[in-house]
Formats: sequence, structure tokens, C-alpha cells
Amino acid sequence: MGNQVTTRWVYSFGDGKAEGRAEMKNLLGGKGANLAEMSNLGLPVPPGFTITTEVCTYYYKNNRTYPSDLKEQVTTALAAVEKSIGAGFGDPENPLLVSVRSGARASMPGMMDTVLNLGLTDVTVEGLVRRSGDARFAYDSYRRFIQMYGNVVLGVEHHHFEDILENVKRDRDITLDTQLVAADWQAVIEGYKQVVEHELGRPFPQDVHEQLWGAVGAVFSSWMNQRAITYRRLHDIPAEWGTAVNIQAMVFGNMGEDCATGVAFTRNPSTGENAFYGEYLVNAQGEDVVAGIRTPQHLTIAGKQANKSDLPSMEEVMPEVFHQLDAVRLRLEGHYRDMQDIEFTVQQNKLYMLQTRTGKRTAAAALKISVDLAAEGVIDRKQAIQRIDPASLDQLLHPTLDPKAQRTVIARGLPASPGAASGKLVFSADEAETQAQLGESVILCRIETSPEDIHGMHAARGILTTRGGMTSHAAVVARGMGRACVAGAGDLRVDYKGQTVTVRGVTIKAGDLVTIDGSTGEVMLGAVPTIQPELSGDFATLMGWADEIRRMKVRTNAETPLDARTAVKFGAEGIGLSRTEHMFFDADRIVAVREMILAETEQGRRAALAKIEPMQRKDFVELFTIMKGLPVTIRLLDPPLHEFLPNSDAEMEEVAKAAGTDILKVRHRAGQLHESNPMLGHRGCRLGISFPEIYEMQARSIFEAAVEVFKESGETVIPEIMIPLIGTKKEFDILKAVIDKVAGEVMTSSGRKLEYLVGTMIELPRACLQAGEIAETAEFFSFGTNDLTQTTFGISRDDAGSFLPDYQRTGILEHDPFVTIDVIGVGELVKIAAERGRATRPDIKLGICGEHGGDPASVHFCETVGLDYVSCSPYRVPIARLAAAQAALSTEQTNRD
Amino acid sequence: MGNQVTTRWVYSFGDGKAEGRAEMKNLLGGKGANLAEMSNLGLPVPPGFTITTEVCTYYYKNNRTYPSDLKEQVTTALAAVEKSIGAGFGDPENPLLVSVRSGARASMPGMMDTVLNLGLTDVTVEGLVRRSGDARFAYDSYRRFIQMYGNVVLGVEHHHFEDILENVKRDRDITLDTQLVAADWQAVIEGYKQVVEHELGRPFPQDVHEQLWGAVGAVFSSWMNQRAITYRRLHDIPAEWGTAVNIQAMVFGNMGEDCATGVAFTRNPSTGENAFYGEYLVNAQGEDVVAGIRTPQHLTIAGKQANKSDLPSMEEVMPEVFHQLDAVRLRLEGHYRDMQDIEFTVQQNKLYMLQTRTGKRTAAAALKISVDLAAEGVIDRKQAIQRIDPASLDQLLHPTLDPKAQRTVIARGLPASPGAASGKLVFSADEAETQAQLGESVILCRIETSPEDIHGMHAARGILTTRGGMTSHAAVVARGMGRACVAGAGDLRVDYKGQTVTVRGVTIKAGDLVTIDGSTGEVMLGAVPTIQPELSGDFATLMGWADEIRRMKVRTNAETPLDARTAVKFGAEGIGLSRTEHMFFDADRIVAVREMILAETEQGRRAALAKIEPMQRKDFVELFTIMKGLPVTIRLLDPPLHEFLPNSDAEMEEVAKAAGTDILKVRHRAGQLHESNPMLGHRGCRLGISFPEIYEMQARSIFEAAVEVFKESGETVIPEIMIPLIGTKKEFDILKAVIDKVAGEVMTSSGRKLEYLVGTMIELPRACLQAGEIAETAEFFSFGTNDLTQTTFGISRDDAGSFLPDYQRTGILEHDPFVTIDVIGVGELVKIAAERGRATRPDIKLGICGEHGGDPASVHFCETVGLDYVSCSPYRVPIARLAAAQAALSTEQTNRD
Repeated sequence: MGNQVTTRWVYSFGDGKAEGRAEMKNLLGGKGANLAEMSNLGLPVPPGFTITTEVCTYYYKNNRTYPSDLKEQVTTALAAVEKSIGAGFGDPENPLLVSVRSGARASMPGMMDTVLNLGLTDVTVEGLVRRSGDARFAYDSYRRFIQMYGNVVLGVEHHHFEDILENVKRDRDITLDTQLVAADWQAVIEGYKQVVEHELGRPFPQDVHEQLWGAVGAVFSSWMNQRAITYRRLHDIPAEWGTAVNIQAMVFGNMGEDCATGVAFTRNPSTGENAFYGEYLVNAQGEDVVAGIRTPQHLTIAGKQANKSDLPSMEEVMPEVFHQLDAVRLRLEGHYRDMQDIEFTVQQNKLYMLQTRTGKRTAAAALKISVDLAAEGVIDRKQAIQRIDPASLDQLLHPTLDPKAQRTVIARGLPASPGAASGKLVFSADEAETQAQLGESVILCRIETSPEDIHGMHAARGILTTRGGMTSHAAVVARGMGRACVAGAGDLRVDYKGQTVTVRGVTIKAGDLVTIDGSTGEVMLGAVPTIQPELSGDFATLMGWADEIRRMKVRTNAETPLDARTAVKFGAEGIGLSRTEHMFFDADRIVAVREMILAETEQGRRAALAKIEPMQRKDFVELFTIMKGLPVTIRLLDPPLHEFLPNSDAEMEEVAKAAGTDILKVRHRAGQLHESNPMLGHRGCRLGISFPEIYEMQARSIFEAAVEVFKESGETVIPEIMIPLIGTKKEFDILKAVIDKVAGEVMTSSGRKLEYLVGTMIELPRACLQAGEIAETAEFFSFGTNDLTQTTFGISRDDAGSFLPDYQRTGILEHDPFVTIDVIGVGELVKIAAERGRATRPDIKLGICGEHGGDPASVHFCETVGLDYVSCSPYRVPIARLAAAQAALSTEQTNRD
Repeated sequence: MGNQVTTRWVYSFGDGKAEGRAEMKNLLGGKGANLAEMSNLGLPVPPGFTITTEVCTYYYKNNRTYPSDLKEQVTTALAAVEKSIGAGFGDPENPLLVSVRSGARASMPGMMDTVLNLGLTDVTVEGLVRRSGDARFAYDSYRRFIQMYGNVVLGVEHHHFEDILENVKRDRDITLDTQLVAADWQAVIEGYKQVVEHELGRPFPQDVHEQLWGAVGAVFSSWMNQRAITYRRLHDIPAEWGTAVNIQAMVFGNMGEDCATGVAFTRNPSTGENAFYGEYLVNAQGEDVVAGIRTPQHLTIAGKQANKSDLPSMEEVMPEVFHQLDAVRLRLEGHYRDMQDIEFTVQQNKLYMLQTRTGKRTAAAALKISVDLAAEGVIDRKQAIQRIDPASLDQLLHPTLDPKAQRTVIARGLPASPGAASGKLVFSADEAETQAQLGESVILCRIETSPEDIHGMHAARGILTTRGGMTSHAAVVARGMGRACVAGAGDLRVDYKGQTVTVRGVTIKAGDLVTIDGSTGEVMLGAVPTIQPELSGDFATLMGWADEIRRMKVRTNAETPLDARTAVKFGAEGIGLSRTEHMFFDADRIVAVREMILAETEQGRRAALAKIEPMQRKDFVELFTIMKGLPVTIRLLDPPLHEFLPNSDAEMEEVAKAAGTDILKVRHRAGQLHESNPMLGHRGCRLGISFPEIYEMQARSIFEAAVEVFKESGETVIPEIMIPLIGTKKEFDILKAVIDKVAGEVMTSSGRKLEYLVGTMIELPRACLQAGEIAETAEFFSFGTNDLTQTTFGISRDDAGSFLPDYQRTGILEHDPFVTIDVIGVGELVKIAAERGRATRPDIKLGICGEHGGDPASVHFCETVGLDYVSCSPYRVPIARLAAAQAALSTEQTNRD
């Protein structure tokens, strides 16, 4: 039935042409596809061929065997290489040597195996001696091959080879490899061959084809080694992709002074500057540059001068080849339209390109390169936007440790909130505040933090906890405040009473200087110097482009004037979540708040609330003034009341005194309010149902503040009042009626008509299912994905630290669902809610105010669901702006496809 | 366009015919429809007419006005009554008197207003004197009318009338109403009229039509009085239904010795015995029977003898009328096919029927009546099944307080687990066990209970807590064990140290006798005698019929041999949930369990688990043996480990000693394991992921027990192993692999092939959404609706007590969602999971094992979703069997319609 189609398993390259091209990465792997592309560009690539990733897939599906016609295709391709080079594989007189390297679709540096100098045998090495006229080079190459092949393909352990080399050196009474002469290497070769035979019971293979297939098999097998499996898991690379194998004629940078080898970046990967940047060594093989045996030299004169190096640059030493290389650099960057990371070898003054790939870079460099390339017309603005990893912007926004400084790391925790901070260690929020008021920088160390610690966290430069995860209270609040935070540093033992923290015998006392790095999780002794970030013009340019592209608005989660100002500076277009309870912890308010909680009657509560109201009004006046008419979403009281009561007897005594009662009553009330699962307890709108007077007071403060701001500045504020933790439409309706009543009263008393919205946080699975009903009266939804994730998974983020690591280790969860939204679970509920909400009220305003609002992958999800805005902590606003632009581009792309 | 259709607002009845009939309850109300039906049956009903419920709806929709043509229709109907009676409304010589009564679709006893003797005026009363020849009767009727009308229609307060009557009696120097003569009543009438005029500023209406419309308006208005609104809310009656008004010619049971009035049941409402049962009074009006001024007499000779009454029965006093009445009784029961509650009046030896309706009855009577009626061929078995309220069976299964006994109630809590129990008060689980072993009956009193108290709860007769709701630990466990429980008796102050409990000045000490009634929530001093239930043959008969009808199987939640045996006795067809952790609390096991928890290495845990394994195996051997091949679902360890550690220092010391370590380590481990929200913490399958050796041990115990039972009894057990708290397919797959591996090992070592199922509890919203994926490998789902309700609502059942009452009061939640499944929220998730699970695996076994499995409304929901079985606590198995049968019938009905 039709002709049998032969699958092409092998793609040749070299000699200014190739059967593959750059777009064929899936089939040829990154290295193979780029070698083909460079060949097609006419660049000097040593000839070779690529065995495709499909062979890898076949190999694992068919019990580690090859397709029947592979051998024939390899033979043909190898013949072409022999022809191109003018040497014969296994030819005793003029042997062709090849390298055998892996090359997967995505770069997996150092994870898989490589064999160099393949094709050397006892016979062919003599041919190499004769052809190269350099016996030492030839024998050195052979022993390198035996060692590499013996280890990688035959599985002989390294130390056997090392022992032999050591013995020969001891016999000769020398210490450096370079002192060994040809005869010495011959002795080493004898020793290597003996150890292989002893270990395996058979001699080192002298058949070059056996060598070749052994190496190919080793590369394919290395796809499933433990390192590679782990790396793939960490980088989301599917096992099904497989690796290709590249077999390429060897060229030698170590055949004399007219030979060299080097690595380079087409632009500076640290700064992004458009300057050729790289290192090389004369008379060396690639591994020597990396190994650090010799000091690499700079490529350019400029580079040499900038680094105050005495060693001559390649531009000086081999100017002609350098200019060829520089031309290749421009050619490649123009072709790939991005900064490239390249490897080259010079053999007897002839340049060979061995690799090109997109170069890794710092966040600052990425910004500059993208903006420059767009300015140069190489890419367009959309491409520039897509080139930047939004998460990398974090590097630019927080102070970082001076990379040149000395550091003594004593413990590690989770990198919970980026930035570095140094200061005196304190163990209580009050002490943090006191010391800060005295002008000290402090690091607040707690076993874990609670809302009562907010003032201290605010006063501190950094926060260190010994319990809790990336989404613990400390972590979330610190990120919101832009404070550095290392969370869950479990090795530290805190002794509050003794005012010390101990780790492996080291004890640090209150007042001692420490440094934490919230980007790495490190805890260090002393004050390590930091450097302040400077936002470049490129940053502003790229953000501007992103703002033109994105559909979703970006708001911030903020309640303090400082946070609000920071967010506006970073481009926030409103407040998506202002947590009113954070305003309750100020020293002058907490007393009244506690009085309210201790009151036994509505009347008593109202009396206490009357004291809080002017302060809340002032909060809102400040926020509204800073936000200048931008939308402000205010969430009414959410946490359970017991969070506001103190725990210690001393504090209880104080509260009792302030409230004019006795400690027994305080203790009794605390006991009454105690909850087994506060997350699922008497909180959110449930407080509003039980104590409507609290929400009344808050609504009144908001409306009166709006009136006041209008009178003072003429700015019309349209507050968005958000009721938390709604599960049923009736809850919402009862509380909306309370708010509407207060609005009416304020309108009457002020004589000013007020516009406002009343909406709800959607943060319970039931609310998602009932969204259609709730939208009948709710004017906006804001997805509270923190709590929605907790309830959908049934996982408390405060307690998840004991098992989430197991979950990530075993691959049950690819991401921490509190960091990146769980699209198939939590995401489905969000989707259901958005659809049902819109079906009832087509113009309902939809946003997200969970931590996920600042996570790029989650922002992308929000775009696909069609939310109107995302809201995140101030320091993540730029990230969200960029992520929203990328999401819009990617959705546009999907819609076009 | 066409003729104008006149709405019929008024339906006449009487004289052996009627315009309405029994099926028209929605339009005529229950009373009106049955009066029409009795008329149609040719029974002697005083003529009258019903103003429909549509008039009530019109009245409230139109600002309390009537349809324009209502008056005309009333006039016509009234004329028919006049003609039938041969008297005239307002006729001075021969006045027609009427009663005006409410009558809604559903019975709302005493909630709305009634006016009797309407049509009497200063003029017509004289006519009544002349026609009846009984001046005292006539004046007494008139003053009753003024009093009733004055209060109900005109709003004059009761005490005014009472004062006047008291004054007249004092003037006459008499104490009993019956001693007043006609002239005295005339004086009372004068006083009544004066007080009305004084209070209202206008005289008592002397126009009978004004009287009539005043009374009709009062009845309609009473539909919206506070009592009626509250009643409707409590009984789920929509306000839109409205009430009808019945206007009916008065007949008089108080016109002499040939007159009488009475109420009766067509069968005994306490026992269900097929015997005429009722009371009557000669020469009395209906209200006299109820008021208790005179001792009512029995209807029948048998009734009189059975109750050792000296007063003559109606059968003896007016045998002819009695036999007419007995004939009516048979006629009505045959017609309505159910036991009827009837009211009648005899006026001058003529019998009149005033009311018939379905009679209320005890659970025992309901059973007997249904079974008897089916045996008599009056109804079929399906109808018999549908007649019984499944929840009422609870009455039959638990001991109850002797209704004749004296009781001193000192506090009230929630009726958390039915049954009554007396015993000595103890304050700790250990003490409960100790005392019980000494043969004492004890009541265990705790602030709240925890899994550590299980042994004490088991040992106690009843459990009393001061904190927690209907689904608190105490309540759930008590219901599971069939122990009486009063939960959340918040007025009680427990002092563990002093070993006392105090309530409003009364202090009860440990060892004092108390009684609790778990069906009412009452806490009583002393030992109130109880009576043991006896299950009748009728119970078995009806259950047998139910079993033939139902589609769903009924299993039980049980782990102890006692529970399993009880459940099998009650008809359980398997175990749907065996909570293995309940087996961990036994004194001889908890030591090893704690040793396991304290172990720092897997090896250490395995050593401790090896000690537990033989005990777990024994548990399962016992269960399998009792269940004789019925399916047994075993849930692997679920609660967080800290639940197994002690709280007090003394206990910690003990644990440390037993585990060969020190208290510091125990305390440290307890601190490590502490969780903010244990419900959402390191529990369920998350333990299995972290410590697979625990699940391995449990799986091994199960499989080895299956082998052992086969060897001993030849019974093939097919265990269903259930993994709790699954949220992702990967968790399930990892743990299923652990179980399969153990199964393979046991099969190899025992040489016996084992059949088993591995499935999961679906108790997280995410699991519902991912059910399609999970079903790829899970062989059954059991819906854990307790946790699913907690996570879907974001409500901890242990903490809900502080706001759920507010939620029910304000109507946010109609039912406690932990008692009756929340169909639109939790129910939607269950439906999604069932659909997705079946789409992947059409024959997947689906069940429910949450508390809802024993709630009739929830069982009905399970039928609509098509679950294969429900599982509930042993004492609720009969309820579930009956509810499942009713659900099947109702679904059959729906499918037919």
C-alpha cells in the first residue's frame, strides 16, 4: 500500500550547508539545530551530523534498541564528514576524530554525557602523531579519550585513572601535567588500558565503530540518569522530549601557538552593554578555559583594559582571526536577533564555530539589551516585552548585598521577600519599634509573626522567622511592605526569655548585628554592605511599552500611606485591596479595638467603635488623597477578633486596666473567642452579621472620608467597599443594606451625593458556585485566591510547611499553589465564578487581590479568564505590569493561531 | 376581547354538597377544603363558605383592600347559609350566628385569629333568648362574642375584660363562671360595651355586616402577625401561600343536656391501635374541652375503662349520636385513607362535624397505623413507607425519659445525640472509664471533647459539653456510639480543678447524679427514670417493605465490634467508613502510637509500627468476622499526629517515660506538630505521603486479616481501602502503589490471591473538580461531606457555634449545613464529582460517609445524584433505610411525571 517512507534519523551539517535549521530544535536539539543554522549561514562549522531526538524516543520505547535503518544513515553521514575533512574514521594514517555530545531541546548544562577525541586507538594514535607532528599532543589526546570514554561509556570510576596519573607523576617526580612528555603519556595510556581491562574483564575497544556506538548509547542513556531527571523536574522539561546526539569532526585548539579556544557573549551579559565580551586561551582545549588551570585572557583590548588585565587580548594576539570572529558575532546577533553565547576554536589560524545559543543575562542586562535591540530595529516592542522574565525585575527593585563583600552564612531559610537588610537583632515587635525610633536599623526575629507584630515589622529593616513558609504571615506581610524576609529558618533556636538565637553552637544575642538576604534565604553574621538599586531609563521605557500593550489594569494591595505612595511610584492604577484591620494595630487604636471586643453589649461596642471611627476616617482621607481619584477597594474587617487580643498575662493585665475591667474577664473573653481553626472561624462577613455596628462604623469612615477629600481637594472618590468571605447571597444582601443605609445617612448629613460600589471577595468555593446569584446584588468581585486556594485544597498555608516540601519533592505539586495559581483546581472555580457572575451582570468588575496577583504565571491565567485587573503588593506592581502585557500578547497570539 | 371572566373568590359548602373539595387545599386552605369534602361526602357539616387564599394574596398586593366583586359573592353565599339554616343574619327574631376562622394550606395551630358567635347585637341577642329559650346561654354567647371580637378585631386588651368579669363576680361574691346567671351576664355585657367604647372612642358595632367584614379583615391581617411570621419561618411555609377565611353557621354544644362537643382521633395517636379515641363534654362549647375547666370524658366505654375513669362515656350517655359519630369515623378514615383528627358538636341530639384533618401521632403509632392500613388494604406498601417521617424513628431507637417522672431542669444545650441517660458526673475520660469499670453509670462532662476522650465517652452513658455545636466532636462521636449527648450547654461553668460545674448559683460536684436528655438538650438534677424502647413487629415489617423499594444500599460508619454488631442488627449492609485512628486510642496502643510519633527516623517509626500491626490486624479480623463477607471500607489514618499526643505535663512525663525519652523532647515534638488550622493541616493522605510506612502497616494489617478470616471461616473478604483527603491524582497514585505493593507481598507470603479495591474519600473541592482524573485509578469514591462542607463553606464545624445561630436567626442558612447537605453549594460539587468520576469509570462505586448519610433530606439528595450507597452511624441505619426507600419512590414519581 504505497511506498514505504523512510524516516530520516540523521541530519548532516558543515561545509556551508546543512539538512537542518534553527527552527528544528524539537527534532535536533538546541545544539544540533544551531550547528545546522550556522552551517547554512556559511559560518565555519566543523562538519558533522545529528542523530535526532526521535531516535531517543524510539530507544526508550523499544527496550533500548535503535531503528533498523539508523546504522546505514549514520554510515552515510559519517562518510560525508570523512570526505569533507579529508580523513578516514579509523584510518591508521589519517584518522578522523569526532566528538559525541548530547543536545536536548532545552539547555541542560552538564547534565548529560560527552565524549571527545573518539576514533583514537593504539593504531590511529600513531597516525595522529605523524599527521600532527606532535607526539605529546597525540598521546595526551588518546589518554584523555580513554579516560573520558572509560568513565562515561564503560563506567570505570574516575579515581582509578587519577591514581595511575598520580603514580606516573610520582615516578617522574613532577607535579604538573604540563611537565609530562610524550613518553610519560604513553606510560599513562598503558596504565589506563590495564585498569579498564582489569575492571571490565575485556580490553579497551580498538574498533572505532564499536567506540562510536558505545558513545551514542551512553549519551542516550544519560537522558535518564538521576541528575538529568532531577534537572528536568526542576525546569518542567518533559521526559518525552528526549535528547539528540551530535557527532562532529574534532578540531584542536591545542596544536600549537596558532591555535586557541574561547567562549564569548555578543553583548555584555551583566550590563547589557553592546560590546563583545569573552575570554580565550592560546594552545588549549575548551575544557581548559573552564577548568581554571590557566587564567583566561580577554577577547578585546577594551575588555582587557576595563578589567586591568596584563595578559594580551585576542584582538592583539591574532587580530585577523579576531576580526573574523567579530564578524561572526555581528552576523549571529543579526540573524538570531538576540544576544548570543558562543564557543569557538582556532586550529592553526583557522576559526571554527562550535556552538551558539541565546545567552543568559542579568535582569538589568536583559532590559538594556531588549530596549537597545528594539531601538536598533532588530526586534519590535512586542518582542522586547516578551524577552524579559517579569520575575527577574525583583532583582532591580530591592537593595542587594554587595557581591564583593565578605559574608559568614550561619543559616538558611526560605527567600520569602527579596532584598537584603542588616541591623541589630530584636525579638519583639515593640522592641523593633522602640529601637527604630532611636534611629537603629533592626532585624526582627520571631518564631513566627502575627498581625500583632505589624508595627514592629514595619519598623524593622528585615524579618527573620524560624517557622512558616513562603506564604506565612511574615512572608506575605514583608512582601507587601517591601521588607526583606527570610522565613522558616528551622535550624535557628529562638529563646525569647534569654533574648538569644542559637544555631549549631553559635549564639547571637539581642543587639548583635546580623544580615539577611531575602532573595537567597541566607542569614549572615555582622552587617554585610548592600547596594541600592538604581532604576535605569531602560526600565521606564520598557514599562511604558508594556503599559501600551496590556489590557488588564494593575492595582496594589496597600493600606499604609507609605505602601500606597510606593505603589503609585511603581505605576499602580488604584488600590485593589486595602485591609482595614491592619489599621487597627496602631498603639493608640488597639486599646479601643480591645475595648470593643471586651464589650458585652451592642451599646458597649458602639461606644468603643465611636473612638476608632475618627482614626479610620483619617486613614481613608490619607489613602484617598494619595490615590488622587484612582479606584480604592476597601475590605471591611476580616480577621477573627481573637487576633486582636494579647497572649501574655502582662499584656492581658494591661488590656484589662485600659478597659477598666480585670484580667479574669479578659482571659475569659480570650477563651470564649479561642478557635480550633481560625481560618474557618468567626471572621470575614460573619463578624459583620454578628456585629453589624463594626461594618457600620467602617462604612461611615469611608463615606465621610470621601466627603472630606472632596471638600479639601475637589477630587471625587468612588470607594469600592468589599465584603470579605461571602458564601451566600443573603449574607451579602444583609451587609449591603447596612452599608447603603450608612451611605444614605452620610449623604443626608453632608448634603453631597456619593457614588460607591459594594462588592465582595470571592474566596470560598461556595461563593464561586453561587457567583451568579451573588452578582445579582454585588457590583464587583475580587478573587481572594489565598483563601480560595486554602479551601479548595484544604491546606492551611501556615501549616503547609510540614508537608509541601514532600509534595514538591515527589512531584505531586509542580508549583507552590500559594505562589502560582493552581489552574486546574482553583482556576476552574475562578473561571466558573467569572462566567456565572458575568452571565448575571455583564459589566461586573472582576479583579484578583490574592498574592497570585503579582505572580507572572497567575497573571497570565487572569488574562485568559478576562479579569479587569490584578492587584499585588507594591514591589510587585512592575512585575504585574510586564506580566499583564506579556499575557495580552500571548492571548493575542493564541487568538490569531 | 372575549367575555370578562369573573374570579370565584368564595366557595360554599354544607347540605351534602360543596363547591370545593379536599384537593383544593391551596385555594381553600386545609380547613376549608376538608369542610367541603365532608359536605360532599354527605356528612352533617354546618353550612358556610370559604373566602379563598387568593383574596389574601390580593389583599396584601393591593394595600389591604379586597377585590371589587368579593362583597357580592359573600352576600350570595351568606344568603345560601341563611336559607339552609332557616335563620337571618341580623334577623332580630331568628338570628343566624357564624364563626369566622382562618385556614391556611398548612396547619398553623393557634397562630392566627378566630371569632365565634358573630351576628349577635343588643337586638339579635334577644331573638336568641327567645328562640333558644335559654337566656343564660344567649347572654353568655353575646359576652363571649364581645370579648373575642373586642380583642381580636378591635384590639382591646384582654385584661380589661377580665377585670370587669372579676368585678361582677366579686359583687356577686362568687368564684366560678358557672355560678353566674343570665342577669349577671347582662351586667358583664354592659361593662364590656363600656370598656370598648372607652378604649376606642366609639361603641361596639351593632351592624352585623360591619362585624363580619371586621372579622374577615382581622383574619387576613393575622397572616402577617409576628407569631405567624416566626412559625412560617420555622416550618418553611412561604408567605405567598396566604390564608383562607371560613365563615360557617354556628352550632351550639352548650344549649342543654342534649348538646355536647368533642374532639377525637380515628385511631389511638399514641399507640396506633385501631380504636376510636377521644373526649367530649356534655353541654359545652369547643373551647371548654380544651380549657380544662371541666374534666373531659371518654368517648368509648373501652376508653373509659382503660383510663379507669368514673365519668360516663359518650357511648353510654348518647348512644345513638355516638354510633352516628362512629360511622362518620369509619367513613372519614376510609375516605382519607389515614388516621383523622376530628372535631364535632352535638346540638339538641343532632351531630355536626366541624373539622377533619390528618392526625398527628407518635413514631410508634405512625408505624402501626401505616402497617395496619396497608394490611387492611386501605393503602399500599409504597404509601405506607411514605407516611413515616424517617427522623421520627430516632424516638424508637433510644431510651427516653419516663414522661411521667418529675424533673428539675438546670440548663439547656443542643440536643446533640438522642436518648436520655442518668449517672454520676465525672470530669475526665479516665475517671469515666474507671467508674464504669466499677459498674457505675456515669455522665462525662467536658468543656469540649477530643479524640483522646474516646475511651471515656465509650464508657459513659451520656456526654455533656459546654462548648461546640451539633457537629462538634462530642456530638458526632456520641451519635456514632449511640450515646446520649447534650452539647454546648454554655451556661455551665466547668471547674476541672475543683471538680465542679456551676450554673446560676447551683454547684454540682463530681459524683452527683445528673440526667441529660439528648433529644431535648435538657440537663437535670438527679436520676430521672427512663424507659427502654421496644422495637415492634411493625417496625420490622415496614423496614422490610422499605428494603424492597430502595435502590441505594445502606452501610454504617463503625470501627468497634459493638458498633458493627449494633449496625448489623439495625440492617446495615456493610461498613462504609471504618476510621482506623479510633483504634489507636486504646490504652495498650497509644503508647506505641506515641513512640512512633516521637521517632526521628523511618527506622524508629517502623519499629513502633511493628508493635501496632498485630493489634490492628486483630481489629480487622474482628470486623471482618462480624460483617460476614459484607463490604468493609477502611479509611487509612486521617487525623494530624498531634491529636495523639497528650496536653498536660503529667501525661507528657508519662509518655516520655514509656518512650524512653525525656519530657523536653516530647514537648518539643508537640511544639513542632502544633498547627494553626489542624483541619487544613498535615493529615489524611498527606501523612501517607510523608510517612508511607504508616499506610504500609495499615494495609498489611488489612490484607493479613483478610487471609486469616478466610482461613478461619472460609469467608472471602473484599476490603475496600480508602485513602482520605485526596486533592490530586498523584497523591492517590503514589499511595495506591504503596498498598498494591503490600498486597503483592501478602499474596506471596500467604499463597492466597486477594481481591480488594482502593478508592478515596472525596472531601475537598479540588478533588471534586479533579474527579475525572482521580477516577482513572480510584475504584470507588466515598463522599466525605463533613469536610467537604467545611471547605466549601470555609466554616470549621468546631468553631461554627459562635455564628451559626446568628445565621439561622437571620435566615441566611435555612438548615445547619452539617446536618442537612447544602444542595446548591456542596451538592453541586458532589454532582460534578459523580458525573466526572462516572465519565471516566462508568462502574465506579459511589457512596457517602459524612454525617449527612443519616439525614433523610440528604439521603434524598444522594438518590438524585445516583449514589450507590449511604453510610451512617449505627443508630441511624434504620432512618437511612427508610429515607432511601422514600427517595427511590419520590424519584420514581418524578421520572413518571
